[in-house]
Amino acid sequence: MTVVVAELPDAAVLRRQVSAVLDGFLENKDGASAEPRMPAEVTQCLREFLAAGGKRLRPLLCVTGWQAGGGRGTPEAVVRTAASLEMFHTFCLIHDDVMDDSASRRGAPTVHRRLARHHRHGRSAAAAERLGASGAILIGDLALAWSAELLHTADMTSRQLGAVLPLVDDMRCEVMYGQYLDVTTAGRPTTDVAQALRIARYKTAKYTVEHPLRIGAALAGAPPAVHEALSAYALPVGEAFQLRDDLLGVFGAPRVTGKPSLDDLREGKHTVLVARALQRADAGQRRVLRSLLGAPGLDQAGADRVRELLIATGARDDVERTIGELRGRALEALRSAPFPPSAVADLRQLADAATERTS
Amino acid sequence: MTVVVAELPDAAVLRRQVSAVLDGFLENKDGASAEPRMPAEVTQCLREFLAAGGKRLRPLLCVTGWQAGGGRGTPEAVVRTAASLEMFHTFCLIHDDVMDDSASRRGAPTVHRRLARHHRHGRSAAAAERLGASGAILIGDLALAWSAELLHTADMTSRQLGAVLPLVDDMRCEVMYGQYLDVTTAGRPTTDVAQALRIARYKTAKYTVEHPLRIGAALAGAPPAVHEALSAYALPVGEAFQLRDDLLGVFGAPRVTGKPSLDDLREGKHTVLVARALQRADAGQRRVLRSLLGAPGLDQAGADRVRELLIATGARDDVERTIGELRGRALEALRSAPFPPSAVADLRQLADAATERTS
Repeated sequence: MTVVVAELPDAAVLRRQVSAVLDGFLENKDGASAEPRMPAEVTQCLREFLAAGGKRLRPLLCVTGWQAGGGRGTPEAVVRTAASLEMFHTFCLIHDDVMDDSASRRGAPTVHRRLARHHRHGRSAAAAERLGASGAILIGDLALAWSAELLHTADMTSRQLGAVLPLVDDMRCEVMYGQYLDVTTAGRPTTDVAQALRIARYKTAKYTVEHPLRIGAALAGAPPAVHEALSAYALPVGEAFQLRDDLLGVFGAPRVTGKPSLDDLREGKHTVLVARALQRADAGQRRVLRSLLGAPGLDQAGADRVRELLIATGARDDVERTIGELRGRALEALRSAPFPPSAVADLRQLADAATERTS
Repeated sequence: MTVVVAELPDAAVLRRQVSAVLDGFLENKDGASAEPRMPAEVTQCLREFLAAGGKRLRPLLCVTGWQAGGGRGTPEAVVRTAASLEMFHTFCLIHDDVMDDSASRRGAPTVHRRLARHHRHGRSAAAAERLGASGAILIGDLALAWSAELLHTADMTSRQLGAVLPLVDDMRCEVMYGQYLDVTTAGRPTTDVAQALRIARYKTAKYTVEHPLRIGAALAGAPPAVHEALSAYALPVGEAFQLRDDLLGVFGAPRVTGKPSLDDLREGKHTVLVARALQRADAGQRRVLRSLLGAPGLDQAGADRVRELLIATGARDDVERTIGELRGRALEALRSAPFPPSAVADLRQLADAATERTS
């Protein structure tokens, strides 16, 4: 994905611009004149988290939405709004890692693990671990607050602010709804494919694709028809993106994805992949899947057994097929979309990248 | 406190207005036409949390700030902004309880404990506990997002919004800074009184008193002199409020405070009370305090021993004296403040209530 996105016109430039905004913002927060001056470890954690990787997909989509809505160039307000989406995503991931107690992200230790190590001296392991989790909850909260501050200081017109804020409110609420479903269904996956799809829609399609695009379009003052066309494209692409993510979470190489490949299985995430496998499994296969998925002590051999069953039941092929169909629907939506041709070309390329990626 | 605040003109009315806004907002979120419709337990948790108590101090201060700034009556935008502060506070408390793993709040089980019980069926105790914590992190995140939504939909003029948003950004950042210091110093209290005061200032004085007042004044379009006078009053009152809270956390009756009286001592919170006691203690007393404060297994006998030492070292009297001095400074600031007389009277009464309260 990273490679393909880099090939989009101006993607590398935008990524640098977004990084510059975020770096400058964090420097201000721990600068000598900052009030209050954040402890160095707070801004350092965020800086390293941002530097460790990430595709900057949401900022990129925000700018693409701006262009789809007829915006030209990338004015400061657009770059800063794009940067605010990346800061919001940072919040989501930090809290996500606390909730899943993940050890690594983007190939580096997660924020709560890093903080636990930082504060280990003179504390019991349990106390350091709790402190790490508390610190990461607070740094996540700060990232959410700071994403709002980036937005408020983006130098928008009051008309732009009025158009953007309701979309931002929806985005925040929807991703948390998706996360809530995700967390409460984990550990006990069922055959309920509709519920798994709902999680993908809220956690990813709306949050990752639809809202960044529409926020960009709102900055450009785009009419309702543009917003509708963006949604028609974004929802299938975003669902496909999550289905691809689910496949990578199980079958992907940790070296490439940056995440341990056992985490999703140990958590027993209720994904479309797993729901389909449970639907298609015979009684014996279902028993094995139920005993292994969500088992905290799942080892490589157990994970291999799950992978075999996801393939043997045809669930993996099934999900690949669905990804292809969703991609088709997204491309179809682009055909009649009232966007400038360059935006259509970018969105087509993004649809390919999001659905074919390997990391 | 509750009783005294209720005696302020219109406090009971405002409390009902704020409740009506919050109830209506939450009803919309799980109503049949809501998209996405939040799981009933999410809105139920927030509803019960709000109904269980709370002094609505921040909404009240927001309206008082509005009046201090020359505002008349309580227009919808002011009530809704006040309600948004209460929703923000709900976020703070829910995350606070997760971080401290507190069992009860306002005399009822905390959100993470309640969710753990709600999802206990078919799960191990450990899995239910983790799910409770994750759910509470997300419900806290939602409360933060919803406090922003309440603000964005408060029907402010763009001038009001432009004046309020920077203050809200500061408020969020400052309370998280205070919480971060609080969390990272807990378990190893020292003689550093200045650091303990800094925590009180950020966690409480700025967040609980100064910003609600100034946000209200900003809605009224108040000039800088009003903001300065509000800060001059708010910081000492807020610090006194936190010092009183520290005393109540150790010496207060759980039946009245709604919080278990061992929590603060078991956490080993770095408070002015404790820092002063450590300063004044002889070597033997200091050894005992260090061994008991922050001990997870601290029992009633140990807590009684700590209380004895806090009294014997003179730390308790010392803190009482400081509270009195801070109250004096706040009242002094009111003398020259450019507020209408009714606002001065209300703020004087609040200073008494905040510093003399027993719960």
